[in-house]
Parts: sequence; C-alpha cells; structure tokens
Amino acid sequence: VIYNALATTDEMNEVFSDISVIESMLGVEAALARAQATLGIIPPPAGESIAAAAATVEGFDAAVLARDARQSGTMAIPLVDALRAKVRAVAPSASEFVHFGATSQDIVDTAFVRLIARACVLLRRDHEALAASLRDLSDRHASDVMLGRTLLQPALPITFGLKAAGWFAGVTRCWNRLDASRAELSVLQFGGPVGTLSAFGDRGLPLADALAEALELSAPAASWHGYGDRPAHFVAACGTYVGTLGKIARDISLLMQPEIAEVAEPGGGSSSMPHKRNPSGCAIALAAAGRLPGLVSTLMSGLVQEHERSLGAWHAQWTAVVDAVQTTGSSLSAMRGVAEGLTVHPDRMRANLDATRTTIPSSAGPADHLGAAEALRRRLLKGD
Amino acid sequence: VIYNALATTDEMNEVFSDISVIESMLGVEAALARAQATLGIIPPPAGESIAAAAATVEGFDAAVLARDARQSGTMAIPLVDALRAKVRAVAPSASEFVHFGATSQDIVDTAFVRLIARACVLLRRDHEALAASLRDLSDRHASDVMLGRTLLQPALPITFGLKAAGWFAGVTRCWNRLDASRAELSVLQFGGPVGTLSAFGDRGLPLADALAEALELSAPAASWHGYGDRPAHFVAACGTYVGTLGKIARDISLLMQPEIAEVAEPGGGSSSMPHKRNPSGCAIALAAAGRLPGLVSTLMSGLVQEHERSLGAWHAQWTAVVDAVQTTGSSLSAMRGVAEGLTVHPDRMRANLDATRTTIPSSAGPADHLGAAEALRRRLLKGD
Amino acid sequence: VIYNALATTDEMNEVFSDISVIESMLGVEAALARAQATLGIIPPPAGESIAAAAATVEGFDAAVLARDARQSGTMAIPLVDALRAKVRAVAPSASEFVHFGATSQDIVDTAFVRLIARACVLLRRDHEALAASLRDLSDRHASDVMLGRTLLQPALPITFGLKAAGWFAGVTRCWNRLDASRAELSVLQFGGPVGTLSAFGDRGLPLADALAEALELSAPAASWHGYGDRPAHFVAACGTYVGTLGKIARDISLLMQPEIAEVAEPGGGSSSMPHKRNPSGCAIALAAAGRLPGLVSTLMSGLVQEHERSLGAWHAQWTAVVDAVQTTGSSLSAMRGVAEGLTVHPDRMRANLDATRTTIPSSAGPADHLGAAEALRRRLLKGD
Amino acid sequence: VIYNALATTDEMNEVFSDISVIESMLGVEAALARAQATLGIIPPPAGESIAAAAATVEGFDAAVLARDARQSGTMAIPLVDALRAKVRAVAPSASEFVHFGATSQDIVDTAFVRLIARACVLLRRDHEALAASLRDLSDRHASDVMLGRTLLQPALPITFGLKAAGWFAGVTRCWNRLDASRAELSVLQFGGPVGTLSAFGDRGLPLADALAEALELSAPAASWHGYGDRPAHFVAACGTYVGTLGKIARDISLLMQPEIAEVAEPGGGSSSMPHKRNPSGCAIALAAAGRLPGLVSTLMSGLVQEHERSLGAWHAQWTAVVDAVQTTGSSLSAMRGVAEGLTVHPDRMRANLDATRTTIPSSAGPADHLGAAEALRRRLLKGD
Repeated sequence: VIYNALATTDEMNEVFSDISVIESMLGVEAALARAQATLGIIPPPAGESIAAAAATVEGFDAAVLARDARQSGTMAIPLVDALRAKVRAVAPSASEFVHFGATSQDIVDTAFVRLIARACVLLRRDHEALAASLRDLSDRHASDVMLGRTLLQPALPITFGLKAAGWFAGVTRCWNRLDASRAELSVLQFGGPVGTLSAFGDRGLPLADALAEALELSAPAASWHGYGDRPAHFVAACGTYVGTLGKIARDISLLMQPEIAEVAEPGGGSSSMPHKRNPSGCAIALAAAGRLPGLVSTLMSGLVQEHERSLGAWHAQWTAVVDAVQTTGSSLSAMRGVAEGLTVHPDRMRANLDATRTTIPSSAGPADHLGAAEALRRRLLKGD
Repeated sequence: VIYNALATTDEMNEVFSDISVIESMLGVEAALARAQATLGIIPPPAGESIAAAAATVEGFDAAVLARDARQSGTMAIPLVDALRAKVRAVAPSASEFVHFGATSQDIVDTAFVRLIARACVLLRRDHEALAASLRDLSDRHASDVMLGRTLLQPALPITFGLKAAGWFAGVTRCWNRLDASRAELSVLQFGGPVGTLSAFGDRGLPLADALAEALELSAPAASWHGYGDRPAHFVAACGTYVGTLGKIARDISLLMQPEIAEVAEPGGGSSSMPHKRNPSGCAIALAAAGRLPGLVSTLMSGLVQEHERSLGAWHAQWTAVVDAVQTTGSSLSAMRGVAEGLTVHPDRMRANLDATRTTIPSSAGPADHLGAAEALRRRLLKGD
Repeated sequence: VIYNALATTDEMNEVFSDISVIESMLGVEAALARAQATLGIIPPPAGESIAAAAATVEGFDAAVLARDARQSGTMAIPLVDALRAKVRAVAPSASEFVHFGATSQDIVDTAFVRLIARACVLLRRDHEALAASLRDLSDRHASDVMLGRTLLQPALPITFGLKAAGWFAGVTRCWNRLDASRAELSVLQFGGPVGTLSAFGDRGLPLADALAEALELSAPAASWHGYGDRPAHFVAACGTYVGTLGKIARDISLLMQPEIAEVAEPGGGSSSMPHKRNPSGCAIALAAAGRLPGLVSTLMSGLVQEHERSLGAWHAQWTAVVDAVQTTGSSLSAMRGVAEGLTVHPDRMRANLDATRTTIPSSAGPADHLGAAEALRRRLLKGD
Repeated sequence: VIYNALATTDEMNEVFSDISVIESMLGVEAALARAQATLGIIPPPAGESIAAAAATVEGFDAAVLARDARQSGTMAIPLVDALRAKVRAVAPSASEFVHFGATSQDIVDTAFVRLIARACVLLRRDHEALAASLRDLSDRHASDVMLGRTLLQPALPITFGLKAAGWFAGVTRCWNRLDASRAELSVLQFGGPVGTLSAFGDRGLPLADALAEALELSAPAASWHGYGDRPAHFVAACGTYVGTLGKIARDISLLMQPEIAEVAEPGGGSSSMPHKRNPSGCAIALAAAGRLPGLVSTLMSGLVQEHERSLGAWHAQWTAVVDAVQTTGSSLSAMRGVAEGLTVHPDRMRANLDATRTTIPSSAGPADHLGAAEALRRRLLKGD
C-alpha cells in the first residue's frame, strides 16, 4: 500500500501479500493432513482431499478472512472454516479431519515462520551484494587519505579504505547474528490446543517430526505457544543490522553535503528544485533505522505472555515481525544501491584534509598517523 | 492486508487505502491550483485544468507510484509527474503550473493531515459510544459490591459502579487530550522548498491562508517542515488512549477468568475447542496496547530532524502515524463492542467477596468501607 | 552517580537525591497526620507527634530503605515502619495513627508528584532563558541570508533569523504542552487501599481536599491508583520537548562542521587532540533525545494496569518519570548554554550560499526568494 | 539511589558505584601505561609512576568528575586531567605519558566492558540457581495435572511439570543468547583518536593485543568507536531474558490469585492491609520487563552513529547498558527468590480442573490428553 511504500520493496510485498499469506497457511494444513494420513491418524483419502483443497487459494477471499479475523481474534479460524467448507463440497466425510488436533497458533506461527524464511533469502542476496560492494570500495580506496571525524569535528587522518572496511565489518557482524537468529526461528510450531499434542496419543511426537521435515523446518523440543523469544531475538537482530545500515547512510549523507562533497550516492530528484540531487537511498535506510527500534520494543514487551497462549501479545507479534522484515528489506535494498552506485572523490578528501592543517598540529600529519591503518583494514575485511 | 488485519478496521482501511491517499494528495494539488488562480498567481484556465485533472484518480496507478516513490524517496514526485502528464494531455500550457511553488512535503503532509482528520471522526464516534456504555454500566451497577484487587490480590470492597466510573473517567481524560492534539495537528503544511513561500512574493501568506481555508485546516504561523512535534504529540495521545483501553481490557479479561467469572465480554470462538469462549475483543485491545508504545517512540526519535527538511525522519513519519491511528481505531472499535456487550454477574462479585472474608479482617466489611464510593463514582462520571 | 552523569544536572540530582525523596514522602505523611488531626480523624496530639517525627530525615537510612523496598516491592512500607518506630519512641500511643487509612501508593505517588513540580520550576527557568536567547538570535540575524538545506542538500536561501525563529516557535509549542501536562500531573494521590477512602466514612472527601490544599496540589475527582495516563502524558511532553531540542542540536552541530562553519557553540575540549573543539552541549542534548523515546515507551506500556493497583507497571513508573525529568533538565541546561554562547558567522553563511550559485538556478537568488521570510519570522516569534 | 531502588540489587549497585567506575577507568589507564612501558613506547619509570597513581581512587572526587563530565561531554577528560595532576605531583616528567595515544572512548568503553563482565558473573550465578529451581519444580510436579489456559480461559489439561519445564527451557534459551552476546561484548576498545592507533607506528597492533591480554578481554579486528552493535546486541539479549522472566512472573502471579490459588510466591506485605500477601518478587520482575524494551530501543536508535565517533549516541550508550544490566539483575534476583520459595498446591490444580469438566467435553479428559506431556517435558529439560 502507498502509505508505507518506503518501508518495503516489491519483492517483500509479494512475500507478505494476502495470497502469499493464505497459501502459506494452506500449505501447513495440507502438510499436516498428508503427514496424518501417512501415520494413520486420519484416513488417507481424507488427507488427499484436504491437501487437494488446500493446494490453491481459490475460494478464499482475503477481505472476508480479514474481517472475520477481527471477530475471532485470529485469521486461522475463518481460514479453517473456509477450508472445511471447500473440502465438504467435494468430500463431506473428510471435512471433519481438516485441522485435526491442531490449534490456530500452530497454523499461523508456522505459516509466518515459512514466509520469514523466504524473506530471508532476499535479505541474504542483498546482504552479499552489499558486502561485496563495500569490500570492493575498501580495496579500491585503500590508500585514499581523508579526514577522520569525531563528534562531527575533524580529528586525524584515516583512509577511505579503512572507513569502508569498518562498514563491511559492521554489516558482516550484524548479518551473522541475523542469520543465526533466522535459523533459530526456522522451527515448527505444533502442539495442539495446549501444547501437549493431546489428540495424537503416542503418535504426537512422530507427527511433529514428520511435519517439520515436510515443511523443511527444525523440530523444537516442544511447541512454543507462550514464548516469543525466538521472534523477538530475530527482530532484534534485524534492528541491529538496520541500525548499522543507518550508520553507513548517516556517514554517506554527511560526506555528500556539497561543502564536503567526498562521496555521492546515485540518489533521486526533487519535486520543486530541478538542480537538486537528494540522497534518497540514505533517506530510506535512515527511515528504516527510525522504525526498527519501536518494532523491537513491541516484540520485547510482548514476551510477557500468559500461560499456554497469551491474550494480546501473540495477536500483536507477527504484524510487528513482518513490518520489521519488510523494513529491513527496504533498507538493505536501498543501501545496496547506494554502495553499488557510490561515487568517491579522493581529491576532495585530500583537499578537506589539507584545509584543516592550520588547526591540526603539524605533528599529526598523515605520514605519522597511518602506519596501522592498512593492517587494520585488512583485519576488518577478514570479517571481524 | 491480512497480515495486519487485527490492527485496523474496515473503515480505517478505507480511509488509508491507496485510492484515498491518492485522492487526498490530488485534493491538495487541486485546491492549490484554484487558490493560485483566484489570487492571480497562475492563469485561471490553468487552475481549472489542473483542478479538473486532479478531480479523479483515473490515470494514477498505485503500484507504479509506490515503486517510483522508493526511487525518489517520496510519493509526491511520481504523483506530481503523473498529474502533469494528465494535464498536459488536455491543456499543454497548464502543465507547468501544476504544483507551482510547492514542495513535496507540502502535499504529502497536508494530505495526511486531512486523512487523519477523517479518521478522527470515526474515533470520536466510537469513543462517544464507548463512554456512554461505560457510564451506563456504572449507573446500572452503582451499588453492586465486589472485591477491589491490588497487585492481583484481593484487598477491600469496591463497587462495580466505581470501577466502571474509573474506566469512564480514564477514557474521557484520554479522549480530551487526543482531541486537543488532533486540533493542533489539523494545520496546513505549506511553505515551498525551504518554507519561505519563495515563489509567491507578497502573495505567499494570502495564498497560504486561502489554501488552509479551502481545505478546512488551520493556518499555522509558518510551515513546519523540520518539526515533527505536532504528529508526535498526536500519536502520544493515541498511545495514552490505547494504553488506557488496554487497562480496561486487562481488567475485563481478568474478571472473565472462569474461576472469577464476574463479567464476560461477547468474545469469539476457538479453532480447536468448541466449548471455549475467548475474550477476543480484549485481545485486540491488548495487542493494540502492545503496538502503540513502539510507534510513539518512533515518532519521538524522529523529532531530531535536520535543517529545513530531514533525511529519514520525515520519511518514516506518516507510516507510523497512520499505523497508530488505525491501531487506535481497532482498539476503540473492539472495546466499544466489549462494553456494549458486557455481561455482568453481581452474584459472583458478591460470592468472591464473601469467600475472602476469612482473610480480610471483619472490620473491613463493606458496611464500613463504601461510604465515599458512591460520591467518588459521581465525581468521576462528571468527566474527571 | 557517575555512570549517568550526562543525563542529569547538579540541581536535578539534588531534587531527586535520597534525602529529598525521603523528605518528600515524610512531608506527605506529616501533612496527612495534620489534616487528620484537624478533621478529628486522629487525636490532635498524635498528629503533632507524627508531624514532628516526619519533620526531619534523622533516623531514616536510605540504604536500608532501598534494600527493604526490594523485599516489599515499595519504599513506602519500610519508610512507614521507620516512621512508626520513630514516633513510638517518643509517643507510643501515636504510632498507630501513622499512615492512617492511607496506602503505599498514596504516599509514593504524591511524594513524586511534589518532586516533579519542584523539578519543573528548574525546567521553566531554563526554558525561559533558552527561549529568550533564541528570540534574540533571531532578531539580531533577521536579515542574515544563508542556505536553506533539505535532505542535507542545499536548497534555496533563508535567513538565520527565520531559522532561529523556527527553533523558538518549536520550543515554545513544546513548553506549552509540557506545562499543561505538568499541571495535569500536579494532583494529589489519595484513596486508601482500594481508592474508596474506606477508613474515613463521610470525612474522606474533606480529608482529601484538605490534604491537597496543604500540599498545594489539585484534588482530582478520585484517586488514580490504576491509571498512569497523567505521568505518561507528562513524560510524552518531555519527550516532545527533548526531541525538539535535539533538532536544534542537530542543526547547530551540522552548521558547526568546519567545512560549513556558520555557527559554533562554546563546546568542550578533547582528551587526545588539543586543537579540537567539540560541540559537547549538543552532544548532551542529542544523548537526551536518544533516551527519551525509550522512557516514553515504558510509560506507555505501563498504562495496562491491573484493577485497583497494578503488579509491575506501577513499580516501574516513577523511576522512568524521574529519569525522564532529569534527562530533560540536562538537555535544557545544555542547550541553554549553547544558545547563550552561540557564535554566528554571517560571512560564512553568505559564502556558502554564494558557492552554490553554480548549482542553484539564477532565478532562485535571494532577491526573489525572501519576500515572506521576515513576515514568517515575526509570526513565529509571536509563539506560533 | 532510592528512586530506582527496585531496578537494581545491592551487588549490582556496588559494581556500578562511583568508586567502582572510577577504579575501572583507572585500571585501563594503568594497564595501558604498563603495556606501553613494556613495549618501549613510554619510559618504564613513567609507566610505573602512572600505574602507581592509578592504583587507588584517592584524589578522585566523583562529584567533581561528574560535574566536569557535563562540561566536556565525557568523564574521561576530567579523570585523565586528575590522573595527570596526581602523577605530576610525584613524577613530573611522567605526567605527559598519561593516556598516551589513547582517546576518551578507549578508556570509557573498555572500563564499562570490564564492569559488564563483572555484572555478568552475578547474572550467571542467579541464572544457574533459577534454572536449577525450575528444573526441580518440574521434576517434583511431573505428574501433577492442572488446567492449561489459553487467552486467559481454560483449555485442556497439562501438568505443572510441563509448565515448569517450559519456563526452564525459556530461560535456558535466553541465557545462552545472553552469554554469547556477553562474550561478543567482552572486547577491548582501543584505537586512539580516530581508530588508527596513530601514535604508535608499527607497535600499535602489538600494543592493542597486549592491552587486551592484560585486561582479560578479546582483541577485536580493530577499534569499534562508531559502532554500537555489540552493546545493542547484548542489551537486546538482556531484554529477551527479562521478558521471559516477565512471562514466568505473569504466570505465577495469575496462578496466585486466591480464586485460583495453585501456587504462591514468598512475597511481601502491605502498608495498609496486614492480611495481604503480595507477589512482590513478580512485581519486580514485571517492572523490569516494562523497562527493558525502552532501553533496548535506545540502544537500537543509537546505532546511527556519525563517522569515527558519534555525537550523542555514544554519550547515551553506557547509561542505557548499565541501566539494562542492573535491571536484569533485579529481575533475576527476584525470580530466583520466587522460584526457590514457590509453594505449589496440586490439590487446587486438580480442583480447578475438575470444576471445568462441565464445560470441557468429556472426551477431553486428562486420560486422553497427557500422552505426550511427559515426553515433551523431558525434551524441554534437555535445554531445548
């Protein structure tokens, strides 16, 4: 939608579109029915009928599901009702086996876990391209001397290669954390009404394992209905990454001020001033960095969940996670474009440095000060 | 969209739909052109052509605008381009007067200010209905004695009338603040590229006043391009209101625990347990209360804006405001339903109170303790 | 304490010191005893004994009170115990009338409300000095032309007088909100265990009114034990003010970059680079602006309070309010110093503007663009 | 201090006391001087003189340092000045070698990293005791059947052993993350003014490695002056842990409502109602869970740091980290006490379950529903 256009990308929009969300939930119901049929928990023909009905979004109306979700407090209830009706129309006896032994949260959580995994493939692609660009910038400008600046004041010389290596190491550290938290979140949610797999007797654990395998997810020790730590940890990792991208965007937009003019991102135009080139990629990354802290805090507050399923915290959880992932995607995509299209002006770097010589004591000239810079740069590019 | 279905309502969705956002922006461009024509700033026929082209959303493709917005950093640029093209097709000489002297932020901010005003009409309606229900609950149960509970432990007797009067006074205080901040936010944004009305010479202030009047907004002393305090203050008021609704939802859901069973909201069902009645209205209100603090913090962080228009903070602002308003609407709508459909069980209130007599000393019985309760109840119902 | 030295001032430290907090709580107990004696609720000699014992902090050990508070969950309980013991030592029969009919929250909340009021006197003094400085800066530089900058890029000319007038209007709007919310928070908290004034029969309301008058606070319709909206609204107003101060600090620190060099704050030195002058006042204001959003969100989350006194939300409330007020004081004090000591370089403003003429089209020169700037400046200085 | 007594512990208070902070900073200066002397960077006698002067806090006045820190924007500057003066008094020629080649941030960050490490030893001790108690509760009540509750309504039976095993697995997951982020944060900060080790030529890297070893910290690839991801990640892990403790506190306080009465924590008393036993341990944990999300969001916002050292974000960082660690300690300490002193009432669990039989369909009795509960419990106790 337009009002939050800057906080997503076309691809992320597609991953979390209504159709995609419905497909993901139906995919869980289908896998459940198949696994139950295989294990003899439901009649095999019922499993087939359910899987067939869940194979397409035909007959599921997103607007109606959303409206009904506001009544029941979860989109699982209207979706299961609609699936039952669709099954009943072709195989009446199978309809009672739809969603058998499962609870709403099993379906919703697992569906979103799968969508997050898809979104993370996009994030990884953009991260790798961004990291490669930053490494390349660092290598190409390894010996281009520039002012180091602290507290927005000139300090002593550094190289642009060292600065870009710092950016590289920052996003690398953050990606490694994000990737680890992604793996932790890629787990099945399946426990039935209170997490005891109560409908399945001694076939509960084999069913959970089979379902996890079918959906290409890890099988946790038990369901995690009342625990939001995995999503919270993941969104925190998104927040750390997006904040570090914001740091890079802040650096670049400061260096792009025309009085400094040491770098320039490709940028965008102005509706009123044709002569103007705006750092619009940085703007998107900085907007994202303003948004994530609030989303992280929502997930953190939402950890205080009641008993075997919470009232409210769960209901707020996935909206915040999806907002966070999409915003992370918008920032990464923007900063990838910024890094790939960055223009660097070593002459201006040198000129700005020279202009401060009157204030920086002569003993602090570059000759004395850059001894370790190249060694540090190489260490940072190893990935920190 | 489905993934955040619980954080809005059908009506709010409509207010902030793509078509509605585009219409609101076009409405600002149309009013601008008309006012400029009236004041002789642009040729009257150009004003008419622009207003005519901006009268319908025909020819504006939301998906394309969103994509282009991600390039330019604002949806105003592609929208103005599309409007110019539409005008040019029928009145070539008029197209150069589209968006004349305005800046992207003038259009975007004013458009959202108008949409927020529309949303607040819905909020007011639901607030008034909710407040009336709470007052009515208080009156009907003025003398129904129940346990007062502190730190989730029984304390001394109160009346349900007093408790409901507290709810009434709480939402009334919060609404009054929200309404005041709404009025503060209902101001025109119009200053041109740097807020100096630079294109208009001495007709700038008259134009701003005329535009404000045409759009039924207040005219501020000057444009507020680099200042987010009005939106932040408004969202904070939403946050305080939604948090207080969360307090009511918490109270009701606690009283609805079957071991206590003093009230029940209409609620919703369960996908797995037909015998179960869930407090789904309270769930939506509590989810909203989990979401607002993060949105408020985003607006607060976003106050640190650079110079005459910020890089990033502005770009994050309206998404957060719109998310906040829609979530406020979802909470109000849910709690209105909860209050209107609340079942009260005075017998259970009495029974739970009696059951604690063994622990509450006899000197603390209701006879001694409710002297001021009715007077306090009446004071609270005056609106605090 | 050192670890948060930058987030307070000496004066604020004193207002919220251990002795000051204890004195404020004792002051409430003393006023309560006196009012109860006057109304005949407790024996007048008991009232005198209690008031006398509560007149000094002698015999109250802050470290012990803090430790005991962690056991009982509130500092009121150990304080009341210590006061009872002190009274008992001189007037045994009076000790049972200590804290008579009151609840912990009555004392704690009222004590903090009083301390906040004291802190707000400091805030007002610094606000008024800051606003006067900003107005003066605006007047003195009314016609000094400089670059307006949007998205960190040069746009069109403005005057420094207009920019400073924007700062003035921003802090004025924010102060007015803060001051209104301060008044709303300056209310007595007094209701007894469950808010019903249960111990006092028909003398409860007169007692509450007398107590409010004695403590120079407003008397609310009823106690507000389960409602955090007043503190939350107040802290949100602090957040909006501090964020706007952060905007000014951001502007000034950007203009102080030596490549721009249009203004300079008095600043501080560097531990490693004697040639360096850092914008340390702006640093403190920007640190404060990074801290408030989180505190606001804590207050907002804390609105979801259970029944007649919450479990946890209340226990987190005043720490966050006090942190917020002290941090507001640190920002105001720092920015007052920045504004009072600001050096302005109109020549550099002009030079930077001239340097952009090659990129700004000639039709956009100052002559054409500053028509309304002075009028807008005057409007802003009226207070918005 | 009293106003935030509930958000710390005596031990944590000691770790972050003024003396302790000063000692930690002096310890870094001493280790630096010794390492520089060893490597021949400064004269060995100077190294000895500096280390001797830095060995005690004598001559360092916390109140004065705090006041001066507000002028210079960092406590390193007044501390280094005071240390230089102390050295000069006994070895004039050595004083110029104090803090040689280092920058304020090197000292401050490394000092806080060391204090955090000390605080984490306390956290680990309390975590291990808490985890042991939860495991023990789970084992002792492995077969005590109780109601599973979802959305605050009764659902199907679980065992208390399974519930406690969920708590155990939750804190175990969270501790493992916290511990990993602690290790990531236990790194030296040392780079000199702009991170290039500019004063040391080719001895910079050996010096950094020697310093890290002396302080028992890891040596990172390079200094991290402009990067807050390590502290932010650590505080996020604290937030996730504290939120999960909040979940346990919520569960226990709900089960302790007298109408349910299935468990009771040791708790505290009431200032007004002698018959009352409050869940004051849970109150502290829930207060902590209300505080951490805001602190996490401050750290996340603070990731957007300018260039080689930020203006403001760095200045806000350690206060927030220390607040977070102390609050984590308060929650852990409280919940350790709660778990160790928890009274469990299996008879009430059974009675409450039986009372719902009229509403839970008979087919859903415990016999049918607890097949997998014990297997799940054992899996959870393996650590998830």
